[in-house]
Amino acid sequence: MPPVKIVEIGPRDGFQSVKEFIPTELKKEAIDRLVAAGIGKIQVTSFVSPKAIPQMRDAREVAEYVTAAYPELEAFALVPNLTGAKLAAAAGIKEIGPVMSLSESHNQANINRTVAQSIEETAKIRQEFPDLKITQDIAVVFGCPFEGRMPVEPLVELIGKIRDLGVRAFTLCDTVGVAYPKQIKAVFEKVRSAFPETEFNAHIHDTRNMGIINSYTAILNGADSVQTAIGGLGGCPFAPGASGNTATEDLAYMLRLEGYDTGLDMEKLVETVVFLRDRIEGNYSGHHAVISAPFPESP
Amino acid sequence: MPPVKIVEIGPRDGFQSVKEFIPTELKKEAIDRLVAAGIGKIQVTSFVSPKAIPQMRDAREVAEYVTAAYPELEAFALVPNLTGAKLAAAAGIKEIGPVMSLSESHNQANINRTVAQSIEETAKIRQEFPDLKITQDIAVVFGCPFEGRMPVEPLVELIGKIRDLGVRAFTLCDTVGVAYPKQIKAVFEKVRSAFPETEFNAHIHDTRNMGIINSYTAILNGADSVQTAIGGLGGCPFAPGASGNTATEDLAYMLRLEGYDTGLDMEKLVETVVFLRDRIEGNYSGHHAVISAPFPESP
Repeated sequence: MPPVKIVEIGPRDGFQSVKEFIPTELKKEAIDRLVAAGIGKIQVTSFVSPKAIPQMRDAREVAEYVTAAYPELEAFALVPNLTGAKLAAAAGIKEIGPVMSLSESHNQANINRTVAQSIEETAKIRQEFPDLKITQDIAVVFGCPFEGRMPVEPLVELIGKIRDLGVRAFTLCDTVGVAYPKQIKAVFEKVRSAFPETEFNAHIHDTRNMGIINSYTAILNGADSVQTAIGGLGGCPFAPGASGNTATEDLAYMLRLEGYDTGLDMEKLVETVVFLRDRIEGNYSGHHAVISAPFPESP
Repeated sequence: MPPVKIVEIGPRDGFQSVKEFIPTELKKEAIDRLVAAGIGKIQVTSFVSPKAIPQMRDAREVAEYVTAAYPELEAFALVPNLTGAKLAAAAGIKEIGPVMSLSESHNQANINRTVAQSIEETAKIRQEFPDLKITQDIAVVFGCPFEGRMPVEPLVELIGKIRDLGVRAFTLCDTVGVAYPKQIKAVFEKVRSAFPETEFNAHIHDTRNMGIINSYTAILNGADSVQTAIGGLGGCPFAPGASGNTATEDLAYMLRLEGYDTGLDMEKLVETVVFLRDRIEGNYSGHHAVISAPFPESP
């Protein structure tokens, strides 16, 4: 069975959408359970202003716990700027994901900067932390709530500029969940052929019910990993009430049937969803969360 | 743009999962709205025992209204037996779907008959109504809650037997929502090559979040139509609380982006979901039902 890499982002993108503060111990236990279920890479938190996102105010404590408890785990964190990168590095994080958007309007709305300023910020981070792995997050790659469907040419141009800084890994984000399979295929084919020896990951939202098909399409077209959130937690400020990220357990279930080795334990994933659902009020859009038992496969 | 045929089954499979009786006038208005949105074929009701399924006790009235009001619409109905077929024909229905299961255990649980008895019943219907179009529904084609994953050979054998009765149309149902893309592809390829000049439709449930990808896979592998329910209504008695049928509006949205001509008006479909949601308490699992506005496509 060919291996496939599912990256868990629930503790960041998922938990960020939860209103009530999730106790730090519960965040740690969620990560414990995800690691026990076989997840090898987790976005554990984000080092943002606690005023902007109070849910992430325990970023340091969570990151310090995870990096100490699971030295083999690829624990990475979102950072909005150089300050965040410094905090992440101090907490033992070895890989960071600075964020910027493909569109000017979304970049302004999201992090109050021009795209040029965001590139400058990644340059500073690269210079200050030559030993950290930087995976550049690019938001609204497939469509922007302000500018509509996004073409691929400006994306190639933006990746080229950031690659020139020495960055060799990117996550292409369908932030508002509007990508469709043929677009995913076209974009991954384009960036793959334009930039050899570069890592490209897919960050897919299930907003319009294309989370599973888009994630699979990304895998089939050369994505190095796909990001999912346990239980399908997560949300989109531009589509209130909408479904969140693709659910880890739902994608894992299908990929196993399709003949891929996800390395994940389906039973433990579903147990983790039930564990979280019993303790955290959130937008659980994964389908296995409501099925009492996995379907019994015949031998 | 290549045409694609989306068949609406919400008024039967969707409404059947609703606990409270839906007033007949509301059922009619739902169908009015679906027709106005461009739907060309609708499973309008089922002629079953009102004791078994009280929700469908107004089958005659609904069918008589629809066949009179929309002579161009392909209005079809589910029937469990010859008695149901008689009632459907009397109400002006021109196409009926008798049901049977691929597995003995599900056929017993669902309609209290052996598979052989079900074949006999279809034979009687065929004989009594030579001018009605019969589309044989075959349940649990991809997996059975009692017998697990189903192989394709018994399906081919069963279709052969029913074809020998003169039936030339079949609907292959993933009743419990366990099919996966490679299985859908294998099954449709198999039946297509085994039985030329036969209509094969796909009835997909979204139970495990594969509704969209499986429906699309069926289309790509020669399904003559795919059945969906407005709002993603529907359910599965073997997975309480689970998602229902694939949502008509979600599949229509994706297929339009993928370059298919569905003939459907996205705005009217979403309005219909909102209309129903405001009046009928149900399991709305379609994603567009919770997004206030469709994503603005750039020109």
